[in-house]
Amino acid sequence: MDTAEIRILSAGTAVPGAPVSNSLLARHFGMDELWEQWIDVFVGTKARHLSVDLETGELRSTLADLAERAARHALSAADLPPSDIDLVVMGTATPDALMPTTVNVVADRLGINAIPTYQLQSGCTGAVQALEVARQLMTGGGYRKALVIAGDSCAKHFDVNADLRAMAPAELVNVVVFGDGAGAAVLSADPTPGRVALRTALTRFTGLGRAPGQSVEWYGRAELSSKKAPVSEDYKAIEALVPVLAKETFDELLVALNWKEQDVDYLLPPQLSARMTERITAALGTTAQEITCVTETGNCGNALAMLQLERLLPLLEPGERAIGVAIESSKWIKAGFAVEGV
Amino acid sequence: MDTAEIRILSAGTAVPGAPVSNSLLARHFGMDELWEQWIDVFVGTKARHLSVDLETGELRSTLADLAERAARHALSAADLPPSDIDLVVMGTATPDALMPTTVNVVADRLGINAIPTYQLQSGCTGAVQALEVARQLMTGGGYRKALVIAGDSCAKHFDVNADLRAMAPAELVNVVVFGDGAGAAVLSADPTPGRVALRTALTRFTGLGRAPGQSVEWYGRAELSSKKAPVSEDYKAIEALVPVLAKETFDELLVALNWKEQDVDYLLPPQLSARMTERITAALGTTAQEITCVTETGNCGNALAMLQLERLLPLLEPGERAIGVAIESSKWIKAGFAVEGV
Repeated sequence: MDTAEIRILSAGTAVPGAPVSNSLLARHFGMDELWEQWIDVFVGTKARHLSVDLETGELRSTLADLAERAARHALSAADLPPSDIDLVVMGTATPDALMPTTVNVVADRLGINAIPTYQLQSGCTGAVQALEVARQLMTGGGYRKALVIAGDSCAKHFDVNADLRAMAPAELVNVVVFGDGAGAAVLSADPTPGRVALRTALTRFTGLGRAPGQSVEWYGRAELSSKKAPVSEDYKAIEALVPVLAKETFDELLVALNWKEQDVDYLLPPQLSARMTERITAALGTTAQEITCVTETGNCGNALAMLQLERLLPLLEPGERAIGVAIESSKWIKAGFAVEGV
Repeated sequence: MDTAEIRILSAGTAVPGAPVSNSLLARHFGMDELWEQWIDVFVGTKARHLSVDLETGELRSTLADLAERAARHALSAADLPPSDIDLVVMGTATPDALMPTTVNVVADRLGINAIPTYQLQSGCTGAVQALEVARQLMTGGGYRKALVIAGDSCAKHFDVNADLRAMAPAELVNVVVFGDGAGAAVLSADPTPGRVALRTALTRFTGLGRAPGQSVEWYGRAELSSKKAPVSEDYKAIEALVPVLAKETFDELLVALNWKEQDVDYLLPPQLSARMTERITAALGTTAQEITCVTETGNCGNALAMLQLERLLPLLEPGERAIGVAIESSKWIKAGFAVEGV
């Protein structure tokens, strides 16, 4: 199987500024200690990084800024110049603009040219979608070295002057759950000893007949007086469905690779919030060591799988196996990937 | 070569409402006959279809509505039920929302489930990007029947109450150049006699060191008082560069297939406007018969290649060859594809 030969050479990530703690958030928005305790108990996230400066409302970094930094880290860790890259695939739900695409702004800044660059629009499964598209394009199209980028930024929807006391609980959660960040990985189709093999990946639309669990709008000029909510979630549906879909994804990967549950040494679970991650991991019933970062970074959307991958790579010994799972709750996508130390 | 076996079984398209003529536009926006003549002479577009009702400002159809209609036409023309599709790839610059993605809304409506669905963010090259990604995923991933969708809608940025007299000329052009629409094609990796073979496709980022020729913004909740222009173009750069890039793309396809210029029976040129299309075709210096629709549909962005493909398929006799070229001027992408009657 050709695709068994795809190697992950490196991963790199970037988050904006210093961590913003729950108490910093509470102080800025004039919320009390009870609110902080509510975050601790029901969300579990302790900090996140924001592209917007909380005090001034100024944009600290665009998604392109974060993606460029992450890509440079990954290229440097792989010891490859950008000119060796012959394919770039990026996944994001929150591009800086509709056009130009963020992937092309980043490619230009890295000095990359004359190759295919693709940007996948996706919620939390964008990193896995990008990994999978890159993997299959390398197999089908003969590309040798791919740069895979994923990330998200809440900046355009994050209102530093928001009145949190006027918000409905479901909307309030969004202020504390999400964080900004980007990540990148370098893939190689050339035999590279002593690296990590990307054994398989999958992505499955599973939204038939299911209402969206999450919506994120964008506004055009003709809608600037729009009153529609930019972000909405059905947290009940998310809580009920994500553990089930995560289990289905995990099991499908095991079957595809003929791995047993006990063969999996590391698990990279979906990371909606620290509490949800605990529930999902419990549903998987695996003894694999969890690679998690949501407590410190919040839910960074598409960046999360890359943040997890960056933590995994130095740990993975030859013969050790890891499975990553990501679930998109907007219109329900199951996605996952499996890697092995070689 | 495996990819030589990919067949295009059908194409289908959809545009919203009745054609909106230049005089209808002029009357609605209170512009005079001189303006109409200016459109005729310098733009050349005679009509376009709009997703917004000019009189009421009401949304006539979302991009998902158009894409669903186009996909149903294509599936019906291929005589395939949606359940035969095992891969969906869509290209658009103007999704209905950031999440859920439009491709997944359409998949749900078609009754498609449990397969990979991808949405590529792209300007005018999105249809070719989607064709190319589908083609290579079919080769690398073993998919048998792919639904490729492409389309765009200006609705969110189209202000029916705009004061055209206050607009700068570059902005004014946007009101008449663009139209809304969607298209779809069904691809098969199974040998299918008497159909059209997708011989090759290419997509190349070529924006290194080049300023964007076009920008299209989206606004978040925190930007609803933003004064930044939603759409901006550098028409001088576009006029200078697009014919050059179109020629490079055309020539690269000929070399890749070992075709001579005189082997090409049909040309599907980039369609920014009727006048620009004339200039681009002249620059290509080909005697191939042009497949064009921009005069009647305006520049429908990602829908255009599909509108052209739908016109081409019934014409293409066994042994006849066609080349399609699309150029994205936002951050400069060359894209093209080659088909042959078999």
